Amino acid sequence: MRLLVLNPNTSASMGAEIASSAVAAASSDTEIICRSAPFGSVAIDSAGESYVSAVAVMDVVATLLAAGEFDFDAVVLAGFGEHGRDALAEMLTVPVFDIAECAAHVAHLIGRRFSVITTLARSIAPIQDRLLLAGLDAHCASVRACGLGTAEVDADPEGAVRAIVAEAVRAVAEDGADVICLGCAGMAGVTAAIAEDVGVPAVDGVAAAVALAQAIVGLGLSTSKAGVYAPGPANARSHWPLSAALGLGS
Amino acid sequence: MRLLVLNPNTSASMGAEIASSAVAAASSDTEIICRSAPFGSVAIDSAGESYVSAVAVMDVVATLLAAGEFDFDAVVLAGFGEHGRDALAEMLTVPVFDIAECAAHVAHLIGRRFSVITTLARSIAPIQDRLLLAGLDAHCASVRACGLGTAEVDADPEGAVRAIVAEAVRAVAEDGADVICLGCAGMAGVTAAIAEDVGVPAVDGVAAAVALAQAIVGLGLSTSKAGVYAPGPANARSHWPLSAALGLGS
Amino acid sequence: MRLLVLNPNTSASMGAEIASSAVAAASSDTEIICRSAPFGSVAIDSAGESYVSAVAVMDVVATLLAAGEFDFDAVVLAGFGEHGRDALAEMLTVPVFDIAECAAHVAHLIGRRFSVITTLARSIAPIQDRLLLAGLDAHCASVRACGLGTAEVDADPEGAVRAIVAEAVRAVAEDGADVICLGCAGMAGVTAAIAEDVGVPAVDGVAAAVALAQAIVGLGLSTSKAGVYAPGPANARSHWPLSAALGLGS
Amino acid sequence: MRLLVLNPNTSASMGAEIASSAVAAASSDTEIICRSAPFGSVAIDSAGESYVSAVAVMDVVATLLAAGEFDFDAVVLAGFGEHGRDALAEMLTVPVFDIAECAAHVAHLIGRRFSVITTLARSIAPIQDRLLLAGLDAHCASVRACGLGTAEVDADPEGAVRAIVAEAVRAVAEDGADVICLGCAGMAGVTAAIAEDVGVPAVDGVAAAVALAQAIVGLGLSTSKAGVYAPGPANARSHWPLSAALGLGS
Amino acid sequence: MRLLVLNPNTSASMGAEIASSAVAAASSDTEIICRSAPFGSVAIDSAGESYVSAVAVMDVVATLLAAGEFDFDAVVLAGFGEHGRDALAEMLTVPVFDIAECAAHVAHLIGRRFSVITTLARSIAPIQDRLLLAGLDAHCASVRACGLGTAEVDADPEGAVRAIVAEAVRAVAEDGADVICLGCAGMAGVTAAIAEDVGVPAVDGVAAAVALAQAIVGLGLSTSKAGVYAPGPANARSHWPLSAALGLGS
Amino acid sequence: MRLLVLNPNTSASMGAEIASSAVAAASSDTEIICRSAPFGSVAIDSAGESYVSAVAVMDVVATLLAAGEFDFDAVVLAGFGEHGRDALAEMLTVPVFDIAECAAHVAHLIGRRFSVITTLARSIAPIQDRLLLAGLDAHCASVRACGLGTAEVDADPEGAVRAIVAEAVRAVAEDGADVICLGCAGMAGVTAAIAEDVGVPAVDGVAAAVALAQAIVGLGLSTSKAGVYAPGPANARSHWPLSAALGLGS
Repeated sequence: MRLLVLNPNTSASMGAEIASSAVAAASSDTEIICRSAPFGSVAIDSAGESYVSAVAVMDVVATLLAAGEFDFDAVVLAGFGEHGRDALAEMLTVPVFDIAECAAHVAHLIGRRFSVITTLARSIAPIQDRLLLAGLDAHCASVRACGLGTAEVDADPEGAVRAIVAEAVRAVAEDGADVICLGCAGMAGVTAAIAEDVGVPAVDGVAAAVALAQAIVGLGLSTSKAGVYAPGPANARSHWPLSAALGLGS
Repeated sequence: MRLLVLNPNTSASMGAEIASSAVAAASSDTEIICRSAPFGSVAIDSAGESYVSAVAVMDVVATLLAAGEFDFDAVVLAGFGEHGRDALAEMLTVPVFDIAECAAHVAHLIGRRFSVITTLARSIAPIQDRLLLAGLDAHCASVRACGLGTAEVDADPEGAVRAIVAEAVRAVAEDGADVICLGCAGMAGVTAAIAEDVGVPAVDGVAAAVALAQAIVGLGLSTSKAGVYAPGPANARSHWPLSAALGLGS
Repeated sequence: MRLLVLNPNTSASMGAEIASSAVAAASSDTEIICRSAPFGSVAIDSAGESYVSAVAVMDVVATLLAAGEFDFDAVVLAGFGEHGRDALAEMLTVPVFDIAECAAHVAHLIGRRFSVITTLARSIAPIQDRLLLAGLDAHCASVRACGLGTAEVDADPEGAVRAIVAEAVRAVAEDGADVICLGCAGMAGVTAAIAEDVGVPAVDGVAAAVALAQAIVGLGLSTSKAGVYAPGPANARSHWPLSAALGLGS
Repeated sequence: MRLLVLNPNTSASMGAEIASSAVAAASSDTEIICRSAPFGSVAIDSAGESYVSAVAVMDVVATLLAAGEFDFDAVVLAGFGEHGRDALAEMLTVPVFDIAECAAHVAHLIGRRFSVITTLARSIAPIQDRLLLAGLDAHCASVRACGLGTAEVDADPEGAVRAIVAEAVRAVAEDGADVICLGCAGMAGVTAAIAEDVGVPAVDGVAAAVALAQAIVGLGLSTSKAGVYAPGPANARSHWPLSAALGLGS
Repeated sequence: MRLLVLNPNTSASMGAEIASSAVAAASSDTEIICRSAPFGSVAIDSAGESYVSAVAVMDVVATLLAAGEFDFDAVVLAGFGEHGRDALAEMLTVPVFDIAECAAHVAHLIGRRFSVITTLARSIAPIQDRLLLAGLDAHCASVRACGLGTAEVDADPEGAVRAIVAEAVRAVAEDGADVICLGCAGMAGVTAAIAEDVGVPAVDGVAAAVALAQAIVGLGLSTSKAGVYAPGPANARSHWPLSAALGLGS
Repeated sequence: MRLLVLNPNTSASMGAEIASSAVAAASSDTEIICRSAPFGSVAIDSAGESYVSAVAVMDVVATLLAAGEFDFDAVVLAGFGEHGRDALAEMLTVPVFDIAECAAHVAHLIGRRFSVITTLARSIAPIQDRLLLAGLDAHCASVRACGLGTAEVDADPEGAVRAIVAEAVRAVAEDGADVICLGCAGMAGVTAAIAEDVGVPAVDGVAAAVALAQAIVGLGLSTSKAGVYAPGPANARSHWPLSAALGLGS
């Protein structure tokens, strides 16, 4: 099985961390191919960046489809709460897995109430929105922020782990969470630290999405094309894919 | 007062209809400046097109801001249920008005239960999602589709009016609606036909947004920058604005 | 345009403050006519007083209608969460604006989560009820009370402003509000104090209602008479209007 | 035990039917005292009439309290969905029972989903509002109207029973109801007809309220005065009780 | 009237306390017959124990039915939040009363927001689930635990009362409750202590269920057999009743 | 990996069908061990039967644990909407998968709105309850019944497939479903028939649970023991396991 894992930002280091998480979660007969956004921002901390990233991952898929090079069994969109999953589901006949939804599904399967720990407070509302639209908010105890931006997490990974563990402790004590979902991609060592220090299971979205992708593909199922994920009408579209119009090689 | 009205698609005829609606609703001392998306698709009938359009309207605003030419008191985003309002609210200090939300607010003020009539059935779910996220779904009796795509509406406007009126009749009789919101921009004559033939008020989103923009600007209020609409961190972003990178003049 | 602004209590000073807020928010071509309840209580701090006030404002309108003197383009009901809006909407063909709902609509348009600051804790539940019935509770972060009754607010306006600002600070910090609605009519200086000291926009309901009334009237829209706001059957009613039966001049 | 049953309209025949229902449901050691509204309308088919009726029943209670003649163990407010229960609860230390809520409580105890059959379609929304505010809407399958106004029900009681039974059949077949609540007071023979012809239990609100009043009084419980039902502040109130000001004897 | 009160555990002392509460709440012409589970556990503090208890109370009823000895007018299931009520309703034509639901119904009738105080924190979620399924969660301010297990409550009743009162104080102050429901059966003296020390009414579920059973039986109503409580199909069942198969006398 | 698949009824043929579905969905390195209820009924069509089945599957697990023979990596509870999952989660440290929840999770991953097709109408409400408690009801378009009982399905499998397909057609056309979940275990050929005849994906709960079990075990995750699924207190329990007390060999 071949999985395309899409990093919605342009950060090579983030892409590498996501790839590492995906590979660690994949079965031995699953091949992970990771691609980062060809344009956009190095981190996604706003609605504006999220929309640009949605278009960027659409662009990757459109470029592969146009070149006849899309030969994957499923796609993982490795942005926690970012936009774009529905657009990819429209474009493709293979299933698409959003790491926020997949983390929430896994949390449901192993607990009763989950909390999400994200980076900045400004990301709390968009993640709540994603869970609400996905129909996965009823068992969400809270979405909390550790207060560190992407750059700070990169600069001090150990400090970031401590901040996330501290927030997880509060989610368990104050909000009644019994599972923690990590609201960002690719932080090595955090799930182990939470399980050990907080005593509750922690779910990494990238790993969750890879595991669920394998499960759905293994069941022979894919996105229903009978509803909103049917391909849209053939409206004329300019400058598409944008990467080609921008002169970016695929 | 100067209002920037953004048509999120690239269709000049749709842009003209939106401008006409906006001008008709504006006070005599309000200046309407209408801009269409510099890239994207001629109509928005899918999630993918909606994301491209969100980036396109962000691009218009970013280009104006970069050139020091953004001198508007408010912005109207004239896509019914399209993405992008939250991104514009982040970017700007003046308020931003989404025509779907504004139509729903007006419907609340003049009735108890409203229905939205959109074009294709595939747009029902995204409009429901928009209302849900906007906290305006509790009084929504239904979102219905007249079954005609954008091209068909353009080709046969009178037939489109008949189809929308017929669907409005069903919304009133079967769903208990007492107000109808038109789920697409710029259809002349429909509101009058519904009021006359169905006996309930009909709300045009563009007109609603212009009226509410004037009201909010008149109150001296603007978007709160204390929450999710605060400007995001200064993450490095490539190829931005895309229109400049694409060689499109502003 | 002529707006009838109804103060649901009998307090002349409260009526004057409401009139002042309304005039300040009105356009130059809008005429504000303010009327206070002809009977009832000097302040409304209970369900019982709220019902009496509903009947009193109905009485004002019925008296004007009976005398052929109702020549207004819209009515503003200036009680925050008080009963009566639906009754006025039944009686009239021009639209009716409730200051609690209008404040909430404005809050939606400029932020993501609003809190209401009211006077006494006993008013929290009724305001929550009003928002719930109006379908405007989903984005309500909290309804809080500053703890001062109407008399205390009147006796020490500056202390009241300080108490309200202090509660607004808590709403922002603890409940995540990014907009504050003032849950009582006619307090000069509070919105400016909140905007300045708390850093979030504050919405005065009377001003909001005047602005939205102007917007709806400007759109040529009015209350739908196809649903619950249709006039009721002609049941025999005794002693009506009560003010006439009580020998009160109109 | 002595129960005060309040008919919120001025109709003597409706008052007699309510009294009859109440007496039939009461235990042998319960004394039923029935009082009709001293002013207001002969039937309540609008929000306006509901507010007048709320003030009228408040007036009955206030007059009794002022005269030192309130010696009841509980009060039943016999208006289905009418306003005023919260005001009476504020005024009294004995418990107050609303027939709409009581019918819904009984329906919960004997089934899974109930429907309410009311008179006119215009009363559907207010009844839904009452159930929503009472926290009793989750198991409500539907609120339906038989289409007959109060006068028509009075003029042709047998036809009214047939119309209500027909609507109950639809509630069971189409909405999945397994219990029917009668959404108006005092219709003899309807509950038996529904039980016999439709095969589901039917709940009369007046009987339900009398039975629950006896149960609560028997438990030695009464309205909590620690929350919204605490007596309000002593604001000056004019012309109160209105009946005295109107020269109506108690 | 004869009421069968079922203690779902095997503890004789708990059974005696339940019987005592039931008798105290019953009218003089009501006969209380109390039966404890013939097998299962001495206390119910887990989902597993709750399921065993459901089967045990079903067994009691099935044994009585098989022996032609079921001559009761109603059944009270005296487990707070335990499973089994729906199964008993299927088996019987007389109504069945669950003490958690009955306590919540009584709380609705005398207040606006209730809190439940249970024993161990692990019982909070199951009680929330029961209220949710019963459609009685909207007015539930909180479910709290005093932290004492059944054994501890038995060993130190006075300490238990103090712990429950302390938690009730927090429910009123922090969660806005104005009524307290006791989330366990048979604790003498607690309701009086809460009413006295906390100033809000307290509801004992066993007493509430007895009172409501009397009310419903008095109304001549019983469980609707037109929906989910119809008797199930005659599937072959082994070892049933289990008590007979286990050689336990009835 | 070794999965214990529990058939909650005593039917050998149903057990065989479940085993067949499970084996077909399992990876080559997953061993499926299927066990049927040692006591109870041959089919589960009522709340009473569901509780007995919950105790029966608890008994299987308790017996294996007591004998030191529980060596499984996960448990699949193959009853659609039956009780017992929470009890097994309390008893075990390996994860437990309920086929109703797993079908719903898979449906979320491949569509936007799912319908469940069950056997008898009386099972609709319990399945809705399960989805509600699992926090998975928001995207449920409907739960429908094909009207055939277990015996009828067994007697005429082809007729059952036709009935289910016909109901699936209605779910898609009338309720807007784009995915169908089969609300009973072990019906060969139905998913293929729905995919082919209705054009939407169909999810078999047993297959879904096996796939998700493999995914969760593969991630190294298991049930959180920090919340409601912690083992209960060691209350004395009689006649346990019941199968031993009944003289049934393990």
